[in-house]
Amino acid sequence: MNSPYAVLDAIRRPLPQALAEALKQQFAERFSTAQSVRDHHGKDESPFPTTAPDAVVFAQSTDEVVAVVKLCAAHQTPLIPYGAGSSLEGHLLAVQGGVSLDLSGMNQIVAIHTEDLTATVQAGVTRKQLNEALKSTGLFFPIDPGADASLGGMAATRASGTNAVRYGTMRENVLGLTVVTAEGKVIKPFHRARKSSAGYDLTRLFVGSEGTLGVITEVTVKLYPVPEAMSAAVVNFPSLDAAVNTVIQTIQMGVPVARSEYLCPYTIKAINAYSHTELRQAHTLFFEFHGTDSSVKEQAELVQQIAHDLGGEDFEWATRPEDRSRLWNARHHAYFALLQSRPGSKGLSTDTCVPISRLADSITGARAILDRSSMPVGILGHVGDGNFHCAILIDPNNPSEIEESERLNDEIVKLAQSMEGTCTGEHGIGLHKIDYLEHEAGDDAMAIMRAIKRSMDPFNILNPGKIFRL
Amino acid sequence: MNSPYAVLDAIRRPLPQALAEALKQQFAERFSTAQSVRDHHGKDESPFPTTAPDAVVFAQSTDEVVAVVKLCAAHQTPLIPYGAGSSLEGHLLAVQGGVSLDLSGMNQIVAIHTEDLTATVQAGVTRKQLNEALKSTGLFFPIDPGADASLGGMAATRASGTNAVRYGTMRENVLGLTVVTAEGKVIKPFHRARKSSAGYDLTRLFVGSEGTLGVITEVTVKLYPVPEAMSAAVVNFPSLDAAVNTVIQTIQMGVPVARSEYLCPYTIKAINAYSHTELRQAHTLFFEFHGTDSSVKEQAELVQQIAHDLGGEDFEWATRPEDRSRLWNARHHAYFALLQSRPGSKGLSTDTCVPISRLADSITGARAILDRSSMPVGILGHVGDGNFHCAILIDPNNPSEIEESERLNDEIVKLAQSMEGTCTGEHGIGLHKIDYLEHEAGDDAMAIMRAIKRSMDPFNILNPGKIFRL
Repeated sequence: MNSPYAVLDAIRRPLPQALAEALKQQFAERFSTAQSVRDHHGKDESPFPTTAPDAVVFAQSTDEVVAVVKLCAAHQTPLIPYGAGSSLEGHLLAVQGGVSLDLSGMNQIVAIHTEDLTATVQAGVTRKQLNEALKSTGLFFPIDPGADASLGGMAATRASGTNAVRYGTMRENVLGLTVVTAEGKVIKPFHRARKSSAGYDLTRLFVGSEGTLGVITEVTVKLYPVPEAMSAAVVNFPSLDAAVNTVIQTIQMGVPVARSEYLCPYTIKAINAYSHTELRQAHTLFFEFHGTDSSVKEQAELVQQIAHDLGGEDFEWATRPEDRSRLWNARHHAYFALLQSRPGSKGLSTDTCVPISRLADSITGARAILDRSSMPVGILGHVGDGNFHCAILIDPNNPSEIEESERLNDEIVKLAQSMEGTCTGEHGIGLHKIDYLEHEAGDDAMAIMRAIKRSMDPFNILNPGKIFRL
Repeated sequence: MNSPYAVLDAIRRPLPQALAEALKQQFAERFSTAQSVRDHHGKDESPFPTTAPDAVVFAQSTDEVVAVVKLCAAHQTPLIPYGAGSSLEGHLLAVQGGVSLDLSGMNQIVAIHTEDLTATVQAGVTRKQLNEALKSTGLFFPIDPGADASLGGMAATRASGTNAVRYGTMRENVLGLTVVTAEGKVIKPFHRARKSSAGYDLTRLFVGSEGTLGVITEVTVKLYPVPEAMSAAVVNFPSLDAAVNTVIQTIQMGVPVARSEYLCPYTIKAINAYSHTELRQAHTLFFEFHGTDSSVKEQAELVQQIAHDLGGEDFEWATRPEDRSRLWNARHHAYFALLQSRPGSKGLSTDTCVPISRLADSITGARAILDRSSMPVGILGHVGDGNFHCAILIDPNNPSEIEESERLNDEIVKLAQSMEGTCTGEHGIGLHKIDYLEHEAGDDAMAIMRAIKRSMDPFNILNPGKIFRL
């Protein structure tokens, strides 16, 4: 097992003086080399130590992004696109120095086409902001990673969340992008049609490219009508197995559940403390059903029957909007609740995803591995997709815990990969999973990824050191 | 407007003798230079004149594909993957000579994982063959281009069909691929997990690459449970507008229709003659609804109400499986029915796709353009996606008709592109839409596509002259 921190030793060049001056000239107070600003942009939600960029630029338009990219290209200086800072694998760390390009000021909703069920937004718009803007339209945007991430960042990491089992991930929901290439060209490879066979799928290539192939400045996404009826339920199970098998059978029967989330007893305890809920501390599933009144009823009855047959208890319903909101807010805050359960801790979150038939083996295998952990661990996740997270709560000042957490993560990833699974269902590779990606994709596929990277970013200025070391 | 046939004048080198001998040595009777075999592999369903390869190899395994690719690479000789021969844009024509690699013998179902809702098949397996193999499983594969295309070919052209409005296209339904690269390496970039954020989405890059980046030899696709209830309906409308607006409102209300197909009166007439149906010769929609008994009933009632409000008449139901089959077989044979309606004709099929809000303008605009046609034309398509086809029935021996059909196509494509649409919803670029792709993607996106092509196929041996001229 390689240390995930080795890459931090890469040699950094200082920021070229001429570049700093040109950026200061153009961006004035929106260019900063203040230590606090740099530190803020040199970390994310991962346990990696802060690794600050040399400067931060706050861009407000695609044209400004072009200007920054061109300057960085001219000076062969690294450039790291920055959205909400909520990534989990060290994506934003300036391991080779350079400029952090903060896009949070690009927060305009460009267009909402209700009649086409699409929205176009600037990259810095967050998922909550978009849904707020959609409130009066009868439409919503379903993709919901734990944090209130930016749409640009969500596209860049191919994010998903609790609704993916029904609505898909960013892979399925991005219709078009505006991207600034490493040369400073602005491209919009696809348009707003729901499907197209026109040439290479550059949109899907940028989705999940983690800022290494271009800077995403606008995103066009699919929207969905708010269902006529929605209903959520909380069910407790006597064992992990019973909970997971309930989800597996639900999926295999084709019940179109909108959400099906597992939470372990420790996670429930953390949530109760953080969100002031009173959930029973047990193996728990949160479900949500979307549809018409009668289809929601049908789905719920089917799932209730499956859960009952497997020993599920205390089917508690949340049909009122405020109860559902409370439930899902608690779920979205689960990661922060877990961090709070061990004050001062940082989380190492695994992110494996396996074919659904291997989910029970994969998650009980992970549980067995984690039973040896000296640190507290919460297990939770989007089990309907075969994707779950083990949040290992580390004291970041204790090297032996860091080492132990990596050892546990390593075993869990390798177990998933041995089951035709992936090391990352939704968080991306970043700094942390480079070796796992190599193992998973194989040398020849990696060679193609590297060739694509070189052909699109020959000087390796775009978020260097992420996805692969090159 | 450029002539789509200009590319056929490209200079061809003769097949290197040493290559022919090596292929003959290894493949014996599965290597052919017979004129009839070559001619058969030098055409597709487009109106392009036959442009034969110099030789044809019939491969039966990924290893054999590797051998052929390596030999062609060593001799810098073009290689064109061939599936069912049903493409529509000249994809298979050997415009630079070389070897046609026939994969129809790679027709093994590798694995059906019912519990994961996935199937892995060799590239030559056709959609009907896969569904036949799924018969006893309670699952089905929804993607259905008109022809009984091969899964490899469907992946290569990013195909879709009548079910895409609910189930998506090959873009959304391919989970993994086995691909032989231009160097003769075998890669399987993703596994069978339903989602992954592990590195560049090479799978999506190969989907729609039309054989220009690698030879697809295996495809893993998503499957779906056969719905508990299905019901189909035929509705007639007094006008094109009324029919199209019914679909637009259906989609905008979020009714999860499985299929919603428009057929013009001329197409209905051709179908009646070809498939011995007795459909009323009018502007017609075919619908299909999937779900539980009650949800199908709800969907159907909603759509019936919308149709009624817009003047729809004669809502005829097909609930028995044999009636539904008959209806959809008639729909799938519509293109051949149209060709038969003008004996000896070839079809130029447009394939534009626009955002749904522009569908009415786009299709009535196309209708107005085609009202000037001297040739018969059928309009039909997957209007729920914003995608429709105008099949212009050309006498292939009449140059003025070919020229006129291209002029009409040109106007229809440009109209769609002016509406944020695409020149191709599902047929691909091939030889025929190269200029339209350039217009649509723009020079800078094209430069990236070319850079990717060069980085993955430096000697341009994989299906050269398709997607772009290079």
